[in-house]
Amino acid sequence: MSVSLVTGGAGFMGSHVAEHLLKMGHSTVVLDDLSGGFRENVPAGAIFVEGSILDHELINHLFRKHSFTYVYHLAAYAAEGLSHFIKRFNYNNNLIGSVNLINAAVNYEVKCLVFTSSIAVYGAGQVPMREDTVPIPEDSYGISKLAVEQELRITHEMFGLDYVIFRPHNVYGERQNIGDRYRNVVGIFMNQLLQGKAMTIFGDGSQQRAFTHIDDVAPILASCVEKPAARNQIFNIGADTPHSVNDLASVVAAAMEKSPRIEHLDARNEVKLAFSDHSKAEAIFGKREKVSLNDGVQRMADWVKKNGARESSIFEGIEIERKLPASWARVASLTR
Amino acid sequence: MSVSLVTGGAGFMGSHVAEHLLKMGHSTVVLDDLSGGFRENVPAGAIFVEGSILDHELINHLFRKHSFTYVYHLAAYAAEGLSHFIKRFNYNNNLIGSVNLINAAVNYEVKCLVFTSSIAVYGAGQVPMREDTVPIPEDSYGISKLAVEQELRITHEMFGLDYVIFRPHNVYGERQNIGDRYRNVVGIFMNQLLQGKAMTIFGDGSQQRAFTHIDDVAPILASCVEKPAARNQIFNIGADTPHSVNDLASVVAAAMEKSPRIEHLDARNEVKLAFSDHSKAEAIFGKREKVSLNDGVQRMADWVKKNGARESSIFEGIEIERKLPASWARVASLTR
Repeated sequence: MSVSLVTGGAGFMGSHVAEHLLKMGHSTVVLDDLSGGFRENVPAGAIFVEGSILDHELINHLFRKHSFTYVYHLAAYAAEGLSHFIKRFNYNNNLIGSVNLINAAVNYEVKCLVFTSSIAVYGAGQVPMREDTVPIPEDSYGISKLAVEQELRITHEMFGLDYVIFRPHNVYGERQNIGDRYRNVVGIFMNQLLQGKAMTIFGDGSQQRAFTHIDDVAPILASCVEKPAARNQIFNIGADTPHSVNDLASVVAAAMEKSPRIEHLDARNEVKLAFSDHSKAEAIFGKREKVSLNDGVQRMADWVKKNGARESSIFEGIEIERKLPASWARVASLTR
Repeated sequence: MSVSLVTGGAGFMGSHVAEHLLKMGHSTVVLDDLSGGFRENVPAGAIFVEGSILDHELINHLFRKHSFTYVYHLAAYAAEGLSHFIKRFNYNNNLIGSVNLINAAVNYEVKCLVFTSSIAVYGAGQVPMREDTVPIPEDSYGISKLAVEQELRITHEMFGLDYVIFRPHNVYGERQNIGDRYRNVVGIFMNQLLQGKAMTIFGDGSQQRAFTHIDDVAPILASCVEKPAARNQIFNIGADTPHSVNDLASVVAAAMEKSPRIEHLDARNEVKLAFSDHSKAEAIFGKREKVSLNDGVQRMADWVKKNGARESSIFEGIEIERKLPASWARVASLTR
């Protein structure tokens, strides 16, 4: 029987992947430090370990104990915009944590490591983004994800560790942490609406993303290890149609049955238009109809309405306060 | 007056850069943890602080206290081949340490950060290496250096911090730590000859590098901040003529007045031929005659003969032992 580790498995994407793995019959261990995830997200049947990918002794202990066949590495602090201001935190979490898993995967002879990278590796103005586009990341988050991709490539060449890399595109859906003020615009909008607040948009809202429902991503991530042709490849994954953030706000407000009040904030340094070419993934994993923005947002809204608003905490440990968007700043001395 | 910080300033390249800065009239602070450097390398007139770039509180303290005009970041553990086996150590030292300095440089408004990257960012088969070649690093060291380069680019775009990046090419010379068994083939050969040992070469010795004497590098690094056209640019720097490792062994043995005994070890995973195009650097910094391999090796040999052999210690903390070259391995359990 396959034994799989899912890092970040109490988080949004990780919990969906863990659920699919259990359905596929994998014995599934979830490792999560609950910094962004929730205990109740862990699907029944999975073994839950509370801990961090930064704890390399714990990692080695788990690999020794469970002899994982596959590792699904989804733990990350995926706040692109904020990553400029928390560089050290970003590289520790997203790169050093990944390296701990790569070391253990080599030493304990894991068969395949599935890694969720990000379209953040591409940078601006490269549309449609294709897997063979030369990456020019424009934030620390994208740089850290790209470094892990490169590390997986050389580790495969040197030690034979197989990998599959996915670059998902703005994924949203049920179980997303809507209390995180720094990432995931769909959840941020819903949380604001539940609290009777205006939806905040950086700039004029014309920036476009191909928002992707989790059901178009998680099943492919889980089952990719069964496709030999997917090994040691990078895949874009997600929806094909870009929508503006303004349009998204209308769809979200309608699904939440609230009036669409919007507050425009100063524009931040971000990519204007992003959408990906998915022909490579379709060639390997098949082409299927994707969840429409209306349907996907409605499903998430139904879940959110049942579960209620979440308190939105402040990120402690901003390293650079200069140019931090006012809505993200706090009245505090530098913590660096 | 300009106040400059030189990280790694008790090391080989850093101590030479510090010496030039003092000659240029900069007030110069050297930060070095003496892991690879030596107290006696720090030039007279420089303020020496023993400490690590990983200690971000110390970094902030120093930046607050000295209000550095320029930062010359040369601290690194530059062992390309070994970096596959010490991935976590590599990324901590070479990336997280650099990020600590970048954070402080933004927060304390440094005018320019000069960073020594490496030709390791290019990867194999890309000759001549040009600054606009798409980098495909093939070891963890090269990946970490490339990530720092990208971090400097986005930090400039976001916060306006100026930088100059150099990619030096196999630099050797006086004050190099000849006791490091994992890096710097010229020093390794000299240390082996002093101890009556054979010079060890990975593979058949036909691999070629454009070995560069420190005097062709350090003065340009030190003075680059005075060239406005150099700001926010990347420069190859070093010698133009590649020599095989076998040829190098003959030159070194002659300079050391020893017979050239060679022991060939199993080939390791390394780039076969590397040389760089230096026209970009010459356009900005001028074209001057470079130190020949014979002259440079002779100068270093004279220094080495005066200073004697160094004990070659074993790197503690190998993270992956699989495929570690036998000459690097030790009889010990995994420390990971």
